[in-house]
Amino acid sequence: MPSTISSTQIALPASDLLRKIYQQQQPYTRVTPLLVAESLSKLIHGEVLVKAESLQKTGAFKFRGAIYRLLQMTPEQRQQGVTAYSSGNFARGLAAAGKILNVKVTLVMPADAPENKICSARKLGAQVVLCQQIEPSREEAAQKLSEDIAAQNGSVLLHPFDDPEIIKGQSAVGVELVHQLQEKQARCQSLLCPVGGGSLVAGCSLLFDTFNTGTQVYGIEPEGYAGMNQSLLVDQLSRAPGKNLSHCDALLSRSPGKANFEVVRQTGVKGLQVSEHYVVEAVQMAFEELKLVLEPSGAIALGALLQYPLQFNGQSVVVIATGGNIDKGLFLELMNK
Amino acid sequence: MPSTISSTQIALPASDLLRKIYQQQQPYTRVTPLLVAESLSKLIHGEVLVKAESLQKTGAFKFRGAIYRLLQMTPEQRQQGVTAYSSGNFARGLAAAGKILNVKVTLVMPADAPENKICSARKLGAQVVLCQQIEPSREEAAQKLSEDIAAQNGSVLLHPFDDPEIIKGQSAVGVELVHQLQEKQARCQSLLCPVGGGSLVAGCSLLFDTFNTGTQVYGIEPEGYAGMNQSLLVDQLSRAPGKNLSHCDALLSRSPGKANFEVVRQTGVKGLQVSEHYVVEAVQMAFEELKLVLEPSGAIALGALLQYPLQFNGQSVVVIATGGNIDKGLFLELMNK
Repeated sequence: MPSTISSTQIALPASDLLRKIYQQQQPYTRVTPLLVAESLSKLIHGEVLVKAESLQKTGAFKFRGAIYRLLQMTPEQRQQGVTAYSSGNFARGLAAAGKILNVKVTLVMPADAPENKICSARKLGAQVVLCQQIEPSREEAAQKLSEDIAAQNGSVLLHPFDDPEIIKGQSAVGVELVHQLQEKQARCQSLLCPVGGGSLVAGCSLLFDTFNTGTQVYGIEPEGYAGMNQSLLVDQLSRAPGKNLSHCDALLSRSPGKANFEVVRQTGVKGLQVSEHYVVEAVQMAFEELKLVLEPSGAIALGALLQYPLQFNGQSVVVIATGGNIDKGLFLELMNK
Repeated sequence: MPSTISSTQIALPASDLLRKIYQQQQPYTRVTPLLVAESLSKLIHGEVLVKAESLQKTGAFKFRGAIYRLLQMTPEQRQQGVTAYSSGNFARGLAAAGKILNVKVTLVMPADAPENKICSARKLGAQVVLCQQIEPSREEAAQKLSEDIAAQNGSVLLHPFDDPEIIKGQSAVGVELVHQLQEKQARCQSLLCPVGGGSLVAGCSLLFDTFNTGTQVYGIEPEGYAGMNQSLLVDQLSRAPGKNLSHCDALLSRSPGKANFEVVRQTGVKGLQVSEHYVVEAVQMAFEELKLVLEPSGAIALGALLQYPLQFNGQSVVVIATGGNIDKGLFLELMNK
């Protein structure tokens, strides 16, 4: 636990509430497998398990938070439709959830979002508006545009990663994981989660904290976009420079969501930054060893083990791998590196 | 059931024996996930589930039969070591099983087997002998060589797909599948299995026949190597021409194993041939939609749905996808087609 607790700390849900949230989602979500990663286990002289959320419906964990959020809305709100901005995976998840629950979805996406993510959101029936602005950051510009659209069309504005209901929805990954670890009688000394806005790591850390599992949760960010890491170091919401080139298109937030940051400082999450070199190596390793297709943002937590093996020496580690939505062209480029 | 039953029919094991075999393997094998394939479901206006055996230890179902076969041996036999020939996936599975149970493994592999399969068998500690001969077929030449080696070094000679114990070992895929279908309360009107020598389809059909599930099992072969299909048509062991070029390196047997053929004619399996075009499309589809890395031999049963969608119209279908051991170069080539 950090030494300074913020005065704005938010209430942590109890474990039975988190289980109930999981059960509400279950008719719509897939149970994703927990796979053994043999070469990574050897590398750290421990045991590495990979929670393959890339095999979730829509290819990423974001579907869990999206379907749960829509399930929480009143029938009147659902009829108004929703508007959100997203770099891709939340867009895809929300579009699929909207299609299932018959809710009209409008999405603001950065104009440079991967083509497969834009196309699949459209295929799922969402209206996609591309945002060309990148100042002050592509996220903030897109957020502003989505606010304007929601005001115009009278729909409910959703925040992809700074909405307490969505954080609770993402915690389902952790509920499922705890259950699978119990089934396998496996330990988890460290849990590694990719961090963009931080809803996954916040959701999972809620669960591992609530269950008192003694697990250290790590939030893994690309170099240059490690806003969560930086915020944890100085114990206040901070902003990463965001100047590097990175293939982690889903993790380019410069600052974590406020609600997420409040959760992770309370649950004692630690941060780690991964360089592009190890992200690429992780995508290749997932192909060669795990037989999984991962996008760079989804492979980054595997990259953390490749970059910092000594830090996890002898441990039982669980890595969350999400998502798998990578354009073919980029995949082929990375495989040739 | 075929009208003529062979006089050499072999005894079909009872369901409780098959469950027991599965339990014996379980400490060593992984439970592989059953995934929803949405675009294929739409294509056939039904429901398609994919049993992702590519995520099994060593990247293919062959590990199941290999570990079970070694577990059946006496301590004396295990000390003698084993010799087998294989185009790759059985080699990898047997090498891994030998390493776990401390049994010396000698493997005869075709000289043109994929490099990743040869390397990984060596990495797992097996002694690999490459066979240059391809007449009368690369399988027969390699079998002869493995017989000579076993005679010389006094090891136990194993047949990769024509050994009743190995067939029983492969049936574990079916046991696990039946359990998963019950859990999901899902139906399986048709079960599609890739066929090389036929041990997987024989093993699975044993189970689906024994459990009286009303499932029609199909054996899926590449064009030009459809020995099982042809044998079923004329109700006797036959030989395919084997002249086509095919990327399905694990399925190039011209004739099914005798024991396998005897099982599948008793359990009423049907055969289907898939052209190379649909095999390649299936590898691409697995990447884009399922987020799975599949080798051509592992994707062929998905290809059957792409080639014959009308035959499965409106059905609940389960496809076995195995394995995922594809060289990077070939994968990139197929993705660019």
